[in-house]
Amino acid sequence: MPGTVTKRYLILAEGRSGDPHYGKTARGVIRYAPDPAVVVVDSTRPGETLDGVPVVATVAEALGYEPTTALVGVATQGGRFPPAWRELLKACIEAGLDVENGLHEFLGDDPELAELASRHDVELRDLRRPPEGLDVPKGENLQIPAQIALTVGSDCAIGKKTVALELDLEARRRGLPSVFVPTGQTGIAIAGWGIAVDAVVADFLAGAAERLVVEGHRRGGELLFVEGQGSLAHPAYSGVTLGLIHGAAPHVFVLCHRAGSTEIEGYPSHPLPSLTQLVELHERIALPLRPARVAALALNTAHLEESHARRAIAEAAAETGLPADDPVRFGASTVLDAVLRALEAQVPPQAADH
Amino acid sequence: MPGTVTKRYLILAEGRSGDPHYGKTARGVIRYAPDPAVVVVDSTRPGETLDGVPVVATVAEALGYEPTTALVGVATQGGRFPPAWRELLKACIEAGLDVENGLHEFLGDDPELAELASRHDVELRDLRRPPEGLDVPKGENLQIPAQIALTVGSDCAIGKKTVALELDLEARRRGLPSVFVPTGQTGIAIAGWGIAVDAVVADFLAGAAERLVVEGHRRGGELLFVEGQGSLAHPAYSGVTLGLIHGAAPHVFVLCHRAGSTEIEGYPSHPLPSLTQLVELHERIALPLRPARVAALALNTAHLEESHARRAIAEAAAETGLPADDPVRFGASTVLDAVLRALEAQVPPQAADH
Repeated sequence: MPGTVTKRYLILAEGRSGDPHYGKTARGVIRYAPDPAVVVVDSTRPGETLDGVPVVATVAEALGYEPTTALVGVATQGGRFPPAWRELLKACIEAGLDVENGLHEFLGDDPELAELASRHDVELRDLRRPPEGLDVPKGENLQIPAQIALTVGSDCAIGKKTVALELDLEARRRGLPSVFVPTGQTGIAIAGWGIAVDAVVADFLAGAAERLVVEGHRRGGELLFVEGQGSLAHPAYSGVTLGLIHGAAPHVFVLCHRAGSTEIEGYPSHPLPSLTQLVELHERIALPLRPARVAALALNTAHLEESHARRAIAEAAAETGLPADDPVRFGASTVLDAVLRALEAQVPPQAADH
Repeated sequence: MPGTVTKRYLILAEGRSGDPHYGKTARGVIRYAPDPAVVVVDSTRPGETLDGVPVVATVAEALGYEPTTALVGVATQGGRFPPAWRELLKACIEAGLDVENGLHEFLGDDPELAELASRHDVELRDLRRPPEGLDVPKGENLQIPAQIALTVGSDCAIGKKTVALELDLEARRRGLPSVFVPTGQTGIAIAGWGIAVDAVVADFLAGAAERLVVEGHRRGGELLFVEGQGSLAHPAYSGVTLGLIHGAAPHVFVLCHRAGSTEIEGYPSHPLPSLTQLVELHERIALPLRPARVAALALNTAHLEESHARRAIAEAAAETGLPADDPVRFGASTVLDAVLRALEAQVPPQAADH
């Protein structure tokens, strides 16, 4: 329901509201969802704020902010539920809040929570639950008359979703018929639709990604910014990345990287390939029927002071010969311009048909 | 139970026993499983044989061969159950046969079939059902003291499993402590263990592959031949392929290719990369912590007369500079020799520790 406020989020971020990695769902929804986040629950940081939203210690205190919907605002590695969370979830359900959950463990499959939700007439929405009827791609990904950009990256949790959101916002500001295509739980929480491609049966990864770009086009997107997942270089999640690349069939990539990182986070001693190697690898692995170039680099420089950030951006541009910027910190114009130029150079007009 | 015959297979291959692609489970089990296949049911080819096993028209006729276990011997694209098959399955269950099924649709989840099986005291084994407790890789794949070879390929259904089986057989003939590591439904039916990696939640692809090589080593394998899946070049299944590559962490690849093929089967106009491009792509995408070379090419030449097959093998070797052979048709020695040489060159003795 665009334009109408239907939800007020209570964000559950116990012990993690200060953690930029595990709190990425919380931060993503606070910043980008059309519905407001009104309160965060984290007993380790009461009295603080998270991106301007007050943090309180308990669900009982949070009810004073009149939330309608609790959102599990943390992602744990592999997606399992910390057991202590059950009490928080039960408190939310008993207070009459719907619950949205982006972990691999589904609330709706938990008999106790499902029964409690039914008794209190609230909805449990498992954002990662795959839709019915997934299958392999049918070729529509190569047929829809949309221009498709996919954010890819050197690692997880470095800003691929945020870059896609910023590019989509900037494109719409310019009046372009752009749609953000969500492929993970936070993107789904933000946009209100999508499929968490990391949660589908592996055989149907590319088929799910195809379905998403087709749906993005059906929603009016002639320009699609698809949220990337994982990294071709990631020892755990690379399969998801490649399935998404081949199923979403982008015309261009935007390569995201956290400035200065040299190892996969959480996988010590797994080195990141160089930016030049990553550019080449993505361009080589694109479908021969849908050759794709890296249009630009999106550097995450949030941890650097401004002069260092500017220098890191200049160095990345020099290393790769590609336009580079931090679209979250310095605005998305440079990267969007590069994407539009690359699309123009790459998509034959008769294929895009607009 | 190695060494003891516990099962006699009735292979259900309705309408597909003559089809080399969709009948690959049937053929794999007939050729490589330690337990015998005694009869094939296919009403379109009664009186014929499939690799020496008699084909009959009905389950009733097949019972004369005293089977103990019915096996769904066809793979359909995407893995769904043809509805007409229900009657065949019910006939098997009512005749007191256990049923093994490798499709994505699980027999055990079908209330009618599950109830029937319980009533007739037979077991429904869904070979693709993922085990409980899958997770992301923990790094054991890089720590076990085993030498790991993975078959990869230019397409699906070109012989990656068969090549791994033949290499394992030849290695064991030479007295090497080799184990075949099954990663798909047919491999599982043949070996009696394994995980169908294409059926796990996409986030846990690499974790499932890691678990398989760890298990292969636990079963005594100091040399592991891991069954490959899909292809990095496949528009539907490439994600499975890359997850398997990063999770199994092979020291060497064996690159399989059907001689003469230039397009992905079932995806018309999707061109195959050249063999040289495929060699380079696999070597580039291997984990930096586990660099892997392509040791040899395994060409599937079953459709060529012998002189043409020999010429295709020589041409592939000349194109890539790698040893090449058809290990199924001409014996696995050449390819196994190349694998062992590559492992020797690649694995530092202290890492392999034997």
